[in-house]
Amino acid sequence: MKIGMLGTGPVGINIATKLVKQGHQVRMGSRDPENPEAAKWARRNGKRASHGTFSEAAKFGDIIFNCTNGAHSIEALRKAGERNLRGKVLIDLANPLKFSKKGEMTLFIGNTDSLGEKIQRTFPSAKVVKTLNTVNMRLHTNPSLLPGEHSIFMSGNDKQAKAKVARILKGFGWKSIIDLGGIKSARGQEALLLFWWHLNKRFPNEPFNYRIVRRRG
Amino acid sequence: MKIGMLGTGPVGINIATKLVKQGHQVRMGSRDPENPEAAKWARRNGKRASHGTFSEAAKFGDIIFNCTNGAHSIEALRKAGERNLRGKVLIDLANPLKFSKKGEMTLFIGNTDSLGEKIQRTFPSAKVVKTLNTVNMRLHTNPSLLPGEHSIFMSGNDKQAKAKVARILKGFGWKSIIDLGGIKSARGQEALLLFWWHLNKRFPNEPFNYRIVRRRG
Repeated sequence: MKIGMLGTGPVGINIATKLVKQGHQVRMGSRDPENPEAAKWARRNGKRASHGTFSEAAKFGDIIFNCTNGAHSIEALRKAGERNLRGKVLIDLANPLKFSKKGEMTLFIGNTDSLGEKIQRTFPSAKVVKTLNTVNMRLHTNPSLLPGEHSIFMSGNDKQAKAKVARILKGFGWKSIIDLGGIKSARGQEALLLFWWHLNKRFPNEPFNYRIVRRRG
Repeated sequence: MKIGMLGTGPVGINIATKLVKQGHQVRMGSRDPENPEAAKWARRNGKRASHGTFSEAAKFGDIIFNCTNGAHSIEALRKAGERNLRGKVLIDLANPLKFSKKGEMTLFIGNTDSLGEKIQRTFPSAKVVKTLNTVNMRLHTNPSLLPGEHSIFMSGNDKQAKAKVARILKGFGWKSIIDLGGIKSARGQEALLLFWWHLNKRFPNEPFNYRIVRRRG
């Protein structure tokens, strides 16, 4: 597949590298087409790896990953261009995090809305699927870092898009993938960050995740 | 122990019944001292069970449970009376839930605050411990309804109060009790309800809970 990766931070670099290793072609996009992180990554990852602007990456990809900082995601996606997102699966990992001067984390959108919904509203022709935002990035492409069953969630309005994303997640090693429903359920996934914040203080410097324990299945 | 139970809904009735069976004395409190649910419960549960006003229940108890509807908790606790809560452990199960006419659930306080914090601020001499608000009431006193390890959380500023609450939770059968930190972490527990809401749609009519999966321990 051809993948457009928006965002050249550690989250995007990690997933892009995994996708190239799996045989996909990946173009990393950033605000600055000469972004040194993206250029270095493309040099090191062979012929299937390339880089460019947000727009070039989005145009290139059949599937787009949003790995930009949540505070700048809408702006980055505008630069990517609505026409380059049209009809495509847009995998949204961004969280609407806001940090106070004291280092406290809150959400800048939530409860009655979510960043996932806002992205879907702003780009109605894209097929937004929210996922992977609930876990430490060390788990994204390496869920077996933790023992036993633990889950990743998906929210999105388009069933076929979610089926495609589920295949990618399975390729990353995820065994328990829970479809939470429409993009509105991104509120639930993003709200989980407020819980994660305190759990992360309790268990610092180690990845963790949630297993949904049920009586059946 | 002598327990004051505020709230005569199914959540309060269930916990009060368990506590009486364990040998504790429990007084159920409600707005109306002649509340028929509370009177029926007291008749059926023997000498250790009694009922009265919010104030009478709070005065009676060395430990107080807030099992009132979150929308009315502050008012109920005011009726219970600050002097009757002073220095006591106040176990807060309430969630700040708000339902739209369409049946959508949101929180009426959250993100930068929580109901647990508001109760602690409003009654600074009480030792508020938020717990049991993250699970279906069928699990409160019967966590073994679900197989294997799954967790319940505590938030509160007073370590001794949390130790007392942990003993009560162990008595209910809880094996994994995670101390999330000060009462500020009630934000995390209450935010979990926004996630729970969507997970509950995915797995309707069945209790579920979370296991925190870590590499160690």
